[in-house]
Amino acid sequence: MRDPLAAALSTIVGAEHVITDPAVRATYETDWTGRFRGSAHLVVRPGSTAEVASVVQACAQAGATIVPQGGNTGLVAGAVPHGSVVLSTRRLSAVEDVEHATGQVTVGAGATLAQVQDHAARSGLRVGVDLAARGSATIGGMIATDAGGIHAIRYGTMRYALVGVEAVLADGSLVGRLGGLGRDPVAALVAGSEGTLGIVTRARLRLIPAWPERATILLAFDALAAAVAAVPVLRARLPDLEALEAFDRTCLDLAAARPGARDPFAGRAAADVFVLVEVAANRPLVDELVGAVEDVDGVLDAVVAADDPDRRRLWALRDGIADAIATAGIPHKLDVGLPLDRLESFVAALRPAVAAVDPAARTFVFGHLGLGNLHVNVVGPAADDERVDDAVLRLVLEHGGEIGAEHGIGRAKARWMNLSHTAAELALRDRLKRALDPDGLLNPGVLAP
Amino acid sequence: MRDPLAAALSTIVGAEHVITDPAVRATYETDWTGRFRGSAHLVVRPGSTAEVASVVQACAQAGATIVPQGGNTGLVAGAVPHGSVVLSTRRLSAVEDVEHATGQVTVGAGATLAQVQDHAARSGLRVGVDLAARGSATIGGMIATDAGGIHAIRYGTMRYALVGVEAVLADGSLVGRLGGLGRDPVAALVAGSEGTLGIVTRARLRLIPAWPERATILLAFDALAAAVAAVPVLRARLPDLEALEAFDRTCLDLAAARPGARDPFAGRAAADVFVLVEVAANRPLVDELVGAVEDVDGVLDAVVAADDPDRRRLWALRDGIADAIATAGIPHKLDVGLPLDRLESFVAALRPAVAAVDPAARTFVFGHLGLGNLHVNVVGPAADDERVDDAVLRLVLEHGGEIGAEHGIGRAKARWMNLSHTAAELALRDRLKRALDPDGLLNPGVLAP
Repeated sequence: MRDPLAAALSTIVGAEHVITDPAVRATYETDWTGRFRGSAHLVVRPGSTAEVASVVQACAQAGATIVPQGGNTGLVAGAVPHGSVVLSTRRLSAVEDVEHATGQVTVGAGATLAQVQDHAARSGLRVGVDLAARGSATIGGMIATDAGGIHAIRYGTMRYALVGVEAVLADGSLVGRLGGLGRDPVAALVAGSEGTLGIVTRARLRLIPAWPERATILLAFDALAAAVAAVPVLRARLPDLEALEAFDRTCLDLAAARPGARDPFAGRAAADVFVLVEVAANRPLVDELVGAVEDVDGVLDAVVAADDPDRRRLWALRDGIADAIATAGIPHKLDVGLPLDRLESFVAALRPAVAAVDPAARTFVFGHLGLGNLHVNVVGPAADDERVDDAVLRLVLEHGGEIGAEHGIGRAKARWMNLSHTAAELALRDRLKRALDPDGLLNPGVLAP
Repeated sequence: MRDPLAAALSTIVGAEHVITDPAVRATYETDWTGRFRGSAHLVVRPGSTAEVASVVQACAQAGATIVPQGGNTGLVAGAVPHGSVVLSTRRLSAVEDVEHATGQVTVGAGATLAQVQDHAARSGLRVGVDLAARGSATIGGMIATDAGGIHAIRYGTMRYALVGVEAVLADGSLVGRLGGLGRDPVAALVAGSEGTLGIVTRARLRLIPAWPERATILLAFDALAAAVAAVPVLRARLPDLEALEAFDRTCLDLAAARPGARDPFAGRAAADVFVLVEVAANRPLVDELVGAVEDVDGVLDAVVAADDPDRRRLWALRDGIADAIATAGIPHKLDVGLPLDRLESFVAALRPAVAAVDPAARTFVFGHLGLGNLHVNVVGPAADDERVDDAVLRLVLEHGGEIGAEHGIGRAKARWMNLSHTAAELALRDRLKRALDPDGLLNPGVLAP
């Protein structure tokens, strides 16, 4: 091995965990959508916290920057390397026993969400954050992006599930508190910092009960305004409201065309906006859910899940949207936040704004309605053509929104930070970065305008 | 006015809002318990965010340090000045309209919790964090300490209610995001930072529905172990569990002796530990609560609130503890966190540890059982005698606990940080402080070992 850094890292983690072969490296260099491609100096896979610290120190000595990477399910190129060392956390996947008294668990950053869910389920518990990429997304990556997902309306984003962390800073020092009592300033610092301030190696999570009863309804509205107006009504009527997901007609048509799927409203009243509502607790919930929906104005049609297979069919429509879009082409995935009272005017202006840039582009809109978190997906423009991104993100800012929500900013949206952040905010970010990582070792280019 | 700083500040806020009169200053110089006394250079009461920024700059130019102060209900001397300028946020009390769609509200840092609760109630909503000092405690102070309170088991601490902040940094710059879409790194940074990193001027809070139905039960246990074992059972059985408060026999006796109060278990089975359980939602809850309690082992006796006056009588026992203790003497109030599985052994060792220092001291224990957050109150030792604090905090650390929980560290516990924090954690804290406040302008001595 002629690369001196590879040799040094091999001494730390073992040669089999230093990947220099371009063919093997490739899966670490491209994101899930295929839109963002980079190249890594090498990939290193430490197997313990101590190895992470040593790897960071070795890279610092060699002047090599580091891109931390979990399941590589990110959508904003936040884990795509451009000459950096990729530090894969995947081997840090140990999960400790669930603590019965508190319902908390300490897990390695490389454990996947599905792995932790299965582990928690054996104690009658689950993680409050859930998302479609659960089989690949790691806890560390979910912390770095402060992942939201379909249950954030009830349990909050990843930040809220986080009782404490163990993290390695750019100088190789180990910080954080896993004692289970919360109030860990390091957890507050690294959650949402997208791997730029420290590398999470372990996390302690607050689990929630795995409720045995669940009720689900899909509502059809003729307009987004009515769906938005439903949000406060459903919140006030449903204390155990767990999901409030919206998607438009174009998403439903695409998802319903997938093998095994169908449009549950086919042949019935035409509707443009669909909202999936779910409640979960330990009592029968269908009557409560249906009663609450009766208080909602503007519902054209509704389908209640009668049983679990029904429920899965309704969720398959929502969960299938991203895959269905990916089949249509490499999407420009723009995860944004909008004030609820400006959601309708944003969506009304969206397709004209996209068409002005690329008349042939197809635009899909879905997301977490309760939080004003929309996923705008545009298929058509070339992967490296950022004109459509620019048009959509500027429209978001005109509507008082945020250019990044649960997916983060990454590299993909960093160039718009000068528009979305004040000079004082950017200066503050810069001071934090310099204080914790003065040499810019961790995730260069991410969250950096 | 011969003091040049007072003159400069008068130009900014008006002479009537610069308090130099020692008699008027006095209420800003002593904490609620009377244990901690300091002295202020002067007190300044800015009336707007712009005035806060100007005050901070003027103090920086004069080399005067600043102690931000809200309702002065803190219990760890975090707002008690020692020669600093006290910057009172009380005039920043404006509350904006509650936003219907999101159920969020933007309020000034100086608004009291009760003021915001009343305001929210007019929209059928309330703040998730509630605590006995609601009439005086300000939103800004609650953010600075990341206040917990009686509903944290359901809604989390103040950090979780916080969608965004507006804050003035030590250089006078204004940062934060009040757009209502969350993911404000400044909010994450200042929550729990006890006024050492920035001064919150406004905050945007996520409100929760003001549930119309509520059920409350007071349980009597013969031992703490049974009360601890009840925590996971009640969590799993009660999706709308809102409070899980514990207090010991000494607390009940003291609170029940207050005018108008009585021991609801008087003349019945002897018990040592009491747990107040409350659920809230929009359906009748008494049967659900009683049913859940039937699954709990070790319950010697129970009193269910039959109506609202009953409920208030039970809560008066819990809420009256702190006032009752204050009547008995100036307490050493030690707010600590313990792992639930070590709570019993900690409490068993507590009174012997206190007695070894001061055989005549009286010790009271109560707190937020669900989170392992105990308030150890000791009456007897002189206010400036820290031997009992030392004994209790060392016992906490021996049991894997945290020396500060919802009250923070302040000045009062700063000297124990070298025992409770690793060198790497202290170094990290120091780097953050230097990055944001290089001249140590904000709240010197607080959170500083």
